[in-house]
Amino acid sequence: MRQVLLTLSFVVAVCGMAWAQAADEAKPAASNLPGAEYPRVHSDLRVTFRMTAPGAQKVQVVPGGSDNGLGKGPFDMKRDERGVWTVTTPPAMPGFHYYWLQVDDFACNDPSTQTYFGWNKECSGIDVPDKALSFYDVKDVPHGDVRAHWYYSKTTGMWRRAMVYTPPGYDHDPQTRYPVLYLQHGSGENERGWTAQGRANFILDNLIAEKKSRPMIIVMENGMVAPKAGGSPAAKPPAPSRGNAAFAELVVNDLVPMIDATYRTIPDRTHRAIAGLSMGAGQATQIGFGNLDKFAYLGAFSGGGMGRTAAKIDDSKPLLVWMGAGTAELGCMGSGKTTVEAMNKAGIKAVWFEAPGTSHEWETWRKCLYDFAPRLFQQ
Amino acid sequence: MRQVLLTLSFVVAVCGMAWAQAADEAKPAASNLPGAEYPRVHSDLRVTFRMTAPGAQKVQVVPGGSDNGLGKGPFDMKRDERGVWTVTTPPAMPGFHYYWLQVDDFACNDPSTQTYFGWNKECSGIDVPDKALSFYDVKDVPHGDVRAHWYYSKTTGMWRRAMVYTPPGYDHDPQTRYPVLYLQHGSGENERGWTAQGRANFILDNLIAEKKSRPMIIVMENGMVAPKAGGSPAAKPPAPSRGNAAFAELVVNDLVPMIDATYRTIPDRTHRAIAGLSMGAGQATQIGFGNLDKFAYLGAFSGGGMGRTAAKIDDSKPLLVWMGAGTAELGCMGSGKTTVEAMNKAGIKAVWFEAPGTSHEWETWRKCLYDFAPRLFQQ
Repeated sequence: MRQVLLTLSFVVAVCGMAWAQAADEAKPAASNLPGAEYPRVHSDLRVTFRMTAPGAQKVQVVPGGSDNGLGKGPFDMKRDERGVWTVTTPPAMPGFHYYWLQVDDFACNDPSTQTYFGWNKECSGIDVPDKALSFYDVKDVPHGDVRAHWYYSKTTGMWRRAMVYTPPGYDHDPQTRYPVLYLQHGSGENERGWTAQGRANFILDNLIAEKKSRPMIIVMENGMVAPKAGGSPAAKPPAPSRGNAAFAELVVNDLVPMIDATYRTIPDRTHRAIAGLSMGAGQATQIGFGNLDKFAYLGAFSGGGMGRTAAKIDDSKPLLVWMGAGTAELGCMGSGKTTVEAMNKAGIKAVWFEAPGTSHEWETWRKCLYDFAPRLFQQ
Repeated sequence: MRQVLLTLSFVVAVCGMAWAQAADEAKPAASNLPGAEYPRVHSDLRVTFRMTAPGAQKVQVVPGGSDNGLGKGPFDMKRDERGVWTVTTPPAMPGFHYYWLQVDDFACNDPSTQTYFGWNKECSGIDVPDKALSFYDVKDVPHGDVRAHWYYSKTTGMWRRAMVYTPPGYDHDPQTRYPVLYLQHGSGENERGWTAQGRANFILDNLIAEKKSRPMIIVMENGMVAPKAGGSPAAKPPAPSRGNAAFAELVVNDLVPMIDATYRTIPDRTHRAIAGLSMGAGQATQIGFGNLDKFAYLGAFSGGGMGRTAAKIDDSKPLLVWMGAGTAELGCMGSGKTTVEAMNKAGIKAVWFEAPGTSHEWETWRKCLYDFAPRLFQQ
């Protein structure tokens, strides 16, 4: 009876309104807060957003960035007589998309969705499902833990939090040691990005269950870092170049030794990989090529300038250089293909990967990880 | 030189404005986003909030709840000619306080602060420091990991995420086994509350370092739960009573067996405690008194109705019943003192605790945990 009443009141509410289509097969996004009915994703991947602000003059849904899979926004919401604002977008790309609301001229979160650290803030996000893919779903397979681990960094002079994925079974056999992938987020994100937005833990759980990837530890740190001498890292984000230099120092001098001392790693270069996306791709290639005695596998997802550094490689050759990007961002990110070809000619094993249809977004980077991880630690 | 320029421009910006006092010794709150200068906490614990919304007619800072340590809001912000809104509150209570902004009639987050899951949403929060206390600070002591652990619950028919604190040293001696504290958040919060808002991991790190507490595992789950038969738990939060019944079933049938099978616990009642705050206090006492063969230590922070259930205790007496509340909420929560006295008369070891000055807020519950944890697993 309760169910019937709810259904009736819902029908009354939508009757005769322009967005009656929202009452179709659309489902709340998995990224919604528990119980939140909006945003809803339709079967054709249109997305209906809704919020309540009777006093607002203008409300828009703003996708984060010009190549956002929600499409070219901002999307103007329409107000009904009760002050409920609604808009349905054109079909979106599958994957995770940052967005926010513009309420009059104030940029703020959608109160109905979880927040994700991106764009240097707690940002709304929506995960649009891809029916053709399941590699990042939560499946009935053994799951690894994702640990928040605090450690002291001499480089920054502060306690820091690293996120550490330990693979399924890690706790059950205290003799087994594992290779390690250091995996970095992009600009404006943090150490939670690869699990919260990227679903890296579920991707690896699934790959390991299918025996496509070797079980490995994944370490994720915050690449937006300032050195101790540069002032107060807590108070101001650093200029990127300064942050990158400090981050390389932090990884090599603080993070890798701490991880090897804390977790059951295989502490040599052939069991250590470093990869990242966008800004993190630049950091990964900078740190990787600069420390080939420590890292034998290098991955650059949608970024990474390897042309100049590749010339410095001598006897410590990487075992694999992997570069990839989405086909919708090849205008910016496609030069990696040429780099990969040049590396292969120079006798360095290199792989180029293109994620079909996606742009500078997490769906590309999920696909990158899914292709990259199985190639690691096979020698 | 850069420092000088920044200072000068700041002086120019505040010159002649009503909130020039904000340029005093005030410091950005630790709960701010990296680099965010506001909100700022003054040495007398006044808090200055600031945001930019040129098009808004009215902006307020709204403390979450009537007994919020920020004081009796809402606090009206004042607009300057550029559309920057500012308000300074009276001196606040130390501790963590939920709040949000009311921009015209739209409730939304402060873009400058981290979000915390509370009030059934991603909510702004501010941590006002207490100079007299350091028990929940990040200190130069060994730190335990806080793990996100996924497991399948037959009760809900879904994969769930539990948060698990493993104490310092857990990974280094694979022979050592540990007692377990099950620790629950309040209504509208989730499994991250006790670490993100409550700083439970740092409290235990510090207690263990000082040898005041026995090293223990802490398990934190989401108490807002619906049973499998009740429909779609992902889509709707349950009515509290239904959720509580399902949660008890989940803890006893799914969570405790999984934790004992996954982590190095001492799997008996004398090494198992259950506690919670507010709604979680009710759950902890309900589950604890209903399963005295499984839990010997019970804690109720600002809540928990133990009068009726205490009569049922026969041969499986709890080793400790602990109840506490803040002195500013004793009008609602003070009845526990009588319960504790009655229990002691009935031969059950019971402790009553009052957190000086604080109300129905996380500062009370941090202090509760700090008093409760050292009393656990001493027999």
